[in-house]
Amino acid sequence: MASLINRRQFTIEWGHCDPAGMVFNSRFFEFFDWGTWTLFELALGVKPSALAETFGIVGLPLVDSGARFIAPARFGDVVEMTSQVSEFRRSSFDVEHKLSVRGVLAVEGRETRVWAVRDPADASKMKAQPIPPEVTARFVAQ
Amino acid sequence: MASLINRRQFTIEWGHCDPAGMVFNSRFFEFFDWGTWTLFELALGVKPSALAETFGIVGLPLVDSGARFIAPARFGDVVEMTSQVSEFRRSSFDVEHKLSVRGVLAVEGRETRVWAVRDPADASKMKAQPIPPEVTARFVAQ
Amino acid sequence: MASLINRRQFTIEWGHCDPAGMVFNSRFFEFFDWGTWTLFELALGVKPSALAETFGIVGLPLVDSGARFIAPARFGDVVEMTSQVSEFRRSSFDVEHKLSVRGVLAVEGRETRVWAVRDPADASKMKAQPIPPEVTARFVAQ
Amino acid sequence: MASLINRRQFTIEWGHCDPAGMVFNSRFFEFFDWGTWTLFELALGVKPSALAETFGIVGLPLVDSGARFIAPARFGDVVEMTSQVSEFRRSSFDVEHKLSVRGVLAVEGRETRVWAVRDPADASKMKAQPIPPEVTARFVAQ
Repeated sequence: MASLINRRQFTIEWGHCDPAGMVFNSRFFEFFDWGTWTLFELALGVKPSALAETFGIVGLPLVDSGARFIAPARFGDVVEMTSQVSEFRRSSFDVEHKLSVRGVLAVEGRETRVWAVRDPADASKMKAQPIPPEVTARFVAQ
Repeated sequence: MASLINRRQFTIEWGHCDPAGMVFNSRFFEFFDWGTWTLFELALGVKPSALAETFGIVGLPLVDSGARFIAPARFGDVVEMTSQVSEFRRSSFDVEHKLSVRGVLAVEGRETRVWAVRDPADASKMKAQPIPPEVTARFVAQ
Repeated sequence: MASLINRRQFTIEWGHCDPAGMVFNSRFFEFFDWGTWTLFELALGVKPSALAETFGIVGLPLVDSGARFIAPARFGDVVEMTSQVSEFRRSSFDVEHKLSVRGVLAVEGRETRVWAVRDPADASKMKAQPIPPEVTARFVAQ
Repeated sequence: MASLINRRQFTIEWGHCDPAGMVFNSRFFEFFDWGTWTLFELALGVKPSALAETFGIVGLPLVDSGARFIAPARFGDVVEMTSQVSEFRRSSFDVEHKLSVRGVLAVEGRETRVWAVRDPADASKMKAQPIPPEVTARFVAQ
């Protein structure tokens, strides 16, 4: 079954770039983050800011992330980004992000996130929780 | 004569916000910067990344900026931003930015920028230059 | 009476700088913010993260800010920053920040902040509150 | 042979943190970047801003990076960060970053970077180059 793909197009801004004239690496992790929020919005029909309350979670904390930088993205470049869940596990999942410029893959990103609730034993902590099947079902491309 | 207005709509991202749940102040100065670049693109029909080369300038360095924070903008809020030149002087100009959320003015920004060329006496420095009248003429709303 | 001065020294990082090789303007507003938090720590002997709870406030929300950019700061430059309250009013105050590189003033910043508590009539809102005299007294240089 | 370790201590700022009150993930990649620059300064005795010119390179472009987020870092937390080269290859190398808060490992980062020169065939491109043995020799802890 194909996985739902979230597509976002945006333009590289002056403030994203470093003295080499290329996007500074940390910015890509901002792009990945937003890619995941909007993927969940697309799949679940819930605004990112309402996600936690709607599903009784504290959020989707990131436990692992990574990126491969294949080609530079520069000021004014139009980026096509796709984001999709590559794997759902019991209480965690992986999201893959691909950013292309002029049809060429520039950056590949990867995030592992957890479906997390407040720990009933300690409200200052989070605790992984099984992802409801009605959630994962929504990430299958129609 | 009315001044050309650049309009941009965007959504407040998780990473824009601080522990108070509101946009961290420095982010607004990123928004202002991009508002100015795209205002110049709208007025002059030149991509931001081609502006310097097209007009033989080194850029539009910022010499003064400011903001009034009137109402908070929060995660998921849709921001309507307008940017326009409020005054052109011989070699500098002021840009006004207004950001509204749900029809209510949230932030007012102000930038003073210089039309700058490389200093012929010292290539490591910049020098203000009169703004060509054919440039300023393009900022009048049709 | 002279005003207490908070001094901070730091080095401009690669990721602070834009394609012109100079600090991107929004970064200075991050520096100002931290300058104010650490000025309050110096004056009141309270860690920034404990300030709100110690004084029963929700924070020191920023209502106005501005900067003059006089000389560029570049990658590797060592910045000397001073921060001090220039005026206390009933429930708001102004902070002045000066950043120098190699003894030359590079940037002047200005923030207006409010001593704010949670609005008893609406917990989602903040409300200005008179600044306690025992707080303002601590900002006089000994 | 043990690898030279660069140690840096810094405090988590308000502007580093997101609405969950924890450091927003992209900030850690800023910290890693600076950790690598200052590790090279420690090893080679050359200021980061002079590194490219001193060694005839265009920089140390990042080709791969990643992080494991083990425990949160919050506003006001004092972070102890270590950075060291875990492996030198012919023209690339890996840097490991470990960030601890109150003695507990909070984040592990990993960067793969290239020793890159301007491509003689195309000045707009970069090209990997063998890392000089006198460079790698300096990363052995004394």
